[in-house]
Amino acid sequence: MYFNDPQSHAWDALVEAAWQGWEHAHAPYSKFHVGAALLRAGGGIVAGCNVENAAYPSSLCAERTAICAAVAQGMKPGELSALVVVTEAPTLTPPCGACRQVLAEFADDLPILLVNRHHRTLHSLADLLPHAFTVRNLNG
Amino acid sequence: MYFNDPQSHAWDALVEAAWQGWEHAHAPYSKFHVGAALLRAGGGIVAGCNVENAAYPSSLCAERTAICAAVAQGMKPGELSALVVVTEAPTLTPPCGACRQVLAEFADDLPILLVNRHHRTLHSLADLLPHAFTVRNLNG
Amino acid sequence: MYFNDPQSHAWDALVEAAWQGWEHAHAPYSKFHVGAALLRAGGGIVAGCNVENAAYPSSLCAERTAICAAVAQGMKPGELSALVVVTEAPTLTPPCGACRQVLAEFADDLPILLVNRHHRTLHSLADLLPHAFTVRNLNG
Amino acid sequence: MYFNDPQSHAWDALVEAAWQGWEHAHAPYSKFHVGAALLRAGGGIVAGCNVENAAYPSSLCAERTAICAAVAQGMKPGELSALVVVTEAPTLTPPCGACRQVLAEFADDLPILLVNRHHRTLHSLADLLPHAFTVRNLNG
Repeated sequence: MYFNDPQSHAWDALVEAAWQGWEHAHAPYSKFHVGAALLRAGGGIVAGCNVENAAYPSSLCAERTAICAAVAQGMKPGELSALVVVTEAPTLTPPCGACRQVLAEFADDLPILLVNRHHRTLHSLADLLPHAFTVRNLNG
Repeated sequence: MYFNDPQSHAWDALVEAAWQGWEHAHAPYSKFHVGAALLRAGGGIVAGCNVENAAYPSSLCAERTAICAAVAQGMKPGELSALVVVTEAPTLTPPCGACRQVLAEFADDLPILLVNRHHRTLHSLADLLPHAFTVRNLNG
Repeated sequence: MYFNDPQSHAWDALVEAAWQGWEHAHAPYSKFHVGAALLRAGGGIVAGCNVENAAYPSSLCAERTAICAAVAQGMKPGELSALVVVTEAPTLTPPCGACRQVLAEFADDLPILLVNRHHRTLHSLADLLPHAFTVRNLNG
Repeated sequence: MYFNDPQSHAWDALVEAAWQGWEHAHAPYSKFHVGAALLRAGGGIVAGCNVENAAYPSSLCAERTAICAAVAQGMKPGELSALVVVTEAPTLTPPCGACRQVLAEFADDLPILLVNRHHRTLHSLADLLPHAFTVRNLNG
């Protein structure tokens, strides 16, 4: 697979799954619909969408929805291989800090592709969350 | 279906799914493993488990994992029909307040079955979260 | 003090502090401004407001802002005596489920006064969060 | 003031306030005590500590406790000038991703000093949260 190239067809199935998640976004408060999809080691794909709440702090982002759904299906730390985030916003939408934190629980590094209707850019978790707080900090 | 009876076989598939979610809990910090499963209107079952994080506030409970996964699969408000929560704790484990809040986004009321290896008790969301804060509060 | 009477002057200083917190709400996304104030055993008052974030799940409610600020000033579990929540919404605004959860970390029960420009009603934490999940559940 | 030098005495009052916050940490679950203090434009200092909860996701970090307390006292976006985070962990403790997200609501950039009993290092918010998700993303 060629996840170091944002234009690679390796991303196609993940991008499609992320748009399918996007269609299910529950975002009546922000009207900002987000979809995500992740690739598990072994090849499984899990999609997510944002799930907002009238009490805004109880909302959840698309990326975390996908990660938690994947864990419930058996994904373990070290088995998260790639992530796609899609919105229709003209500026590509990066993961929020809290989502980066949850990604870092399951991967030391990760290619992250940001996609909208016209563009895509490739980032990595290591670039988006340098000096991450992890279990290594907790254990001293 | 007979979800008003905690011993009804109507609960069997949900309880089984919740224990399957439980097996996937990522709970290295609390060591407190939780599984959940919900029933969607129409009959689909979605499981969840708790997904902890080295930064504790970025953790997610099993109930919310199941709800968000179900939304990513297309569940809408009003389509959440029943919930099961399982742990091995000798005292049955109720949903935390934040999970009750997220349940209330998708159901006005809901039968909630708490299960461990020996017992089960039946609650309802209306009983567990009276005077809920909902979209009706936001809209004045 | 007479916190069992919603009209008691015992509430006056807390209500005033909650409105002062309300004036500082950072709520550019919901436009729903909330203030809160709590009474510590010993008499100290600590105010809070909601603090929203462009990434909605990273927002915080007024009640939790007040509680966490009080803890940073030295409040311990068992030292939380009363809470007021104020908004201008015509329907009185109850704490969300997540705030009830955080209140339950610091008090087994608590009088909670809901206030707007015209009305007030008195609740208790025990009524708003029955069968709470607490440290007793974690410890089995 | 000389916040570009980690050894500058400009940091002294903030470091002292962060240790005072640290003494009040409510961290019975992780046993990982964290203190924080921020400097407001104009000179005010606000301290915070982590405030954990039996339901781990309802916990709050020290940095967010300080920020939210400062907002309740009147701090506005653009008025957050510096942050200190203190722990006794031998490896210096960086803010988690969610705290970086909340910092980014109130400052485009920010000097962040990490301190333990023996060492200190200086970071910046721009370095710790590149490509931040902000209100500019929400507004397209």
